[in-house]
Amino acid sequence: MIPATLTVDLAQRSYPVYIGQSIFLDKMLWNKYVTGSQVCIVTNATIAPLYLTQFCAIFSELSCSTVLLPDGEAHKQLDAWLQIIDTLVANQHKRSTTLIALGGGVVGDITGFAAACYQRGVNFIQVPTTLLAQVDASLGGKTGVNYQNQKNLIGTFYQPQAVIIDIAFLSTLPEREFRAGLAEVIKYALIYDKEFFNYFSQHINQILARSPQVLAYMIEVCCRIKIYFVEQDESDTTGLRALLNFGHTFGHALESAMDFTILHGEAVAWGMHKACQLSQRLGYLSHEDVTKVERLLNCCELLIQPLHTAPVELILSAMNNDKKNSKNKITLILLKHLGEAFVTDSVEPEMISEIVREGLC
Amino acid sequence: MIPATLTVDLAQRSYPVYIGQSIFLDKMLWNKYVTGSQVCIVTNATIAPLYLTQFCAIFSELSCSTVLLPDGEAHKQLDAWLQIIDTLVANQHKRSTTLIALGGGVVGDITGFAAACYQRGVNFIQVPTTLLAQVDASLGGKTGVNYQNQKNLIGTFYQPQAVIIDIAFLSTLPEREFRAGLAEVIKYALIYDKEFFNYFSQHINQILARSPQVLAYMIEVCCRIKIYFVEQDESDTTGLRALLNFGHTFGHALESAMDFTILHGEAVAWGMHKACQLSQRLGYLSHEDVTKVERLLNCCELLIQPLHTAPVELILSAMNNDKKNSKNKITLILLKHLGEAFVTDSVEPEMISEIVREGLC
Repeated sequence: MIPATLTVDLAQRSYPVYIGQSIFLDKMLWNKYVTGSQVCIVTNATIAPLYLTQFCAIFSELSCSTVLLPDGEAHKQLDAWLQIIDTLVANQHKRSTTLIALGGGVVGDITGFAAACYQRGVNFIQVPTTLLAQVDASLGGKTGVNYQNQKNLIGTFYQPQAVIIDIAFLSTLPEREFRAGLAEVIKYALIYDKEFFNYFSQHINQILARSPQVLAYMIEVCCRIKIYFVEQDESDTTGLRALLNFGHTFGHALESAMDFTILHGEAVAWGMHKACQLSQRLGYLSHEDVTKVERLLNCCELLIQPLHTAPVELILSAMNNDKKNSKNKITLILLKHLGEAFVTDSVEPEMISEIVREGLC
Repeated sequence: MIPATLTVDLAQRSYPVYIGQSIFLDKMLWNKYVTGSQVCIVTNATIAPLYLTQFCAIFSELSCSTVLLPDGEAHKQLDAWLQIIDTLVANQHKRSTTLIALGGGVVGDITGFAAACYQRGVNFIQVPTTLLAQVDASLGGKTGVNYQNQKNLIGTFYQPQAVIIDIAFLSTLPEREFRAGLAEVIKYALIYDKEFFNYFSQHINQILARSPQVLAYMIEVCCRIKIYFVEQDESDTTGLRALLNFGHTFGHALESAMDFTILHGEAVAWGMHKACQLSQRLGYLSHEDVTKVERLLNCCELLIQPLHTAPVELILSAMNNDKKNSKNKITLILLKHLGEAFVTDSVEPEMISEIVREGLC
C-alpha cells in the first residue's frame, strides 16, 4: 500500500498528514519533524505494552522521556496535563523538545494542550492509534481537557508539526473502540458526502472486517473532509467548522450526564440519531433517510439506547451549557439532506426535550 | 493631552494600543471591543478599592463578573488561573465573553492565559495599571504563570483585542513599583535606542516627578520599540524578540532564587547591571558606558545589591534552567554599545558565575 500524504494548509501553521501501513517504523519520516535532541512520548497504560518499546527504539539516539497517562475520557483532566508538564520539568526539556502523542483522542488532546502551554509552546506530533482519533481528533489543532464535568472546557487551538496515521494500530484496537470510531466516519458522510455514505453502506462488511485497503481509503476520505473544514475555519468562529459537531451537542451532553462512562463515539452515534430524528420532525429528512441511517448505525452496533441510566434532566442541562451556544439558545447541527448539514439555534427547547426523551425505557 | 493610538500589526491578530490620560472612562472606546453581553473584570486586592467601582459602572448594562486575585508575583500560579476559570464557569460565560485584565503584569499574564484557554479562547483586553505592565507586559501576547519555581513555565502566546494604557493609573502607583517599572524603560533605551537613553537621562527629574506629558511620551517610545520586536518575531523564535530579555536571564534567576519576594523590575535592574558589567568584561562597553548606566540606575534607586540573602548557587542553577537556553549553554543578551544588543551563548560559565558573585557581601 502506497502511503498517502495530505496537507493541512494553514499558512505558517501548515502540516502534513501521512496515512499508511506501518509507516511509524520509518525513521526517515521522524527525522524530518523531530529536530531537537529531546522527545517526550505521551501514551497510556493500554498502548504502552503494545508499542512503547518500538517507539523508544526509534528515538534511541535522543534523550527520550515517557509519560503513561491513565486510559479513558474520565481521566481527561488537568491532573493528566500536569503529569506531562511535571515530566518535562523533571527531565529539563527545552523549548526545542518534541512531544509525541501516541494514543487515542484523549492522549492527543491532553498532549496537544501540554505542548501548547509548556514554555509557551513546543513542537508536537500526533500519532493517533484509535480509528476515532485517526479520522477526527488528531486533525485540526483542538486541544484540551474536561473541567467541572464540561467537555473540553479548558484548552487551546494549537496545531501539530505532523500527523502520522498508521493503519497498523487498528489491528490491535478493541472491537468496541473500532465501532465507536465508525460513528465519526458516518458523521462525515452525513454532513458532507452522500456518495461516501453510499460507499460506506456498500462496503460495510469489509470495513467491519478491517480490510486495510478499505480502511485506508475510508480514513483518507474522512481526513480530506476534516481538513477542508479546518482550513476554512481554523478557530471555529465562522460557523463552518461547527458542522463537524453534528451529533455532538446531544452526544457531549450524554457523555457528561453519564460521567464519561461511555465512549465518545457511542455518545456521538446516539446524538446523530437524535439529530436525524429532529431533522425529520422539522421536515428536512424523510422517514426513509432516517431508516437508512438507523440501518447503518445498527450494522455498526451503534444504535443504542444508553439513556435508562442517564437522567434526562442532566442531559438537557448539559446541552444548555454547551460551548457552541450563544444567548441562552441551544445551537444544533441538523441535516437538510443526507450529505448536507446546517447550524440552527431556533429549535424550540420543548421539541429538543421531546426528542431526547423519545425511546427511553 | 491627545491620546496616541499605535497598532500591533500581526495579520488577523492585529490590535490597537491606546495611550492617554483618563481614556479608560470613555465608554465609546469599550463599545468597540466588548462585543458580547458578558464581561469578566480580573483585578487584584490593591487595584479593586481604587478603580473597580468605576469599571463596573462602565459595564453596568452587561452581565459583569469580577475576580480579585491575590497581589504579587508569588501568586502568579495555576491556582489564580483556575480562580478565573471557575468564575467564568460559575457565571456561565460563553465564548462571546470578554475578559478585562485590570492590573499589573501578573494580572495581565494570568488573565491572558485564562482567556487563551477558556473554551479554547475568548476575547480579552489589557488595561495595565503599573508602569512595568504599560511599557512591557501588556504588549505582545505573552501569557502564563510560574510553575515549580520557574518563571512563566506554563503559558501561551495569545494576543488581546486591545490594550488601553491610561497614564491616570500611574498617579496611584506606589513609588517602589514606579521605579521598578523604570527598569524596563531603561532596558528599551539600552538595547535599541541610544537617543532615548539620552532623553531619559536628561528628563530624569520630570520622569521621577511623574509629569504626565513626559510619561506619555516615554511610554509611547517604549511601546513603539516593543511593538517593533513583537511584529518581527511574534512567537519568540527568530532570536530578535529574545533581545527584549536583556537583564532577564540574570533577573529571572534572582527572582526565582529569592522566591519572588522582590519586584520583577528590581530583579531586571540588577540583571541589566550584571549584563553591562559582563559586556564591559568582554570588551564591548567602555568603563564610561557602564558608569552612565550605573548613574541612571542609581537615580532611580535601582542600583541594588539584593544578593546577600540570595544564595549564589540557587541563582546560577536557575540560570541554567532558563527557557531561552539550548544545549546546556546559558543564553545571554549583552550590549555591543549603549543602544545595541545581541544574543550569545558562548560566555564561559566561570565568567558568568564571577560576575554574579561580584559585589556580594
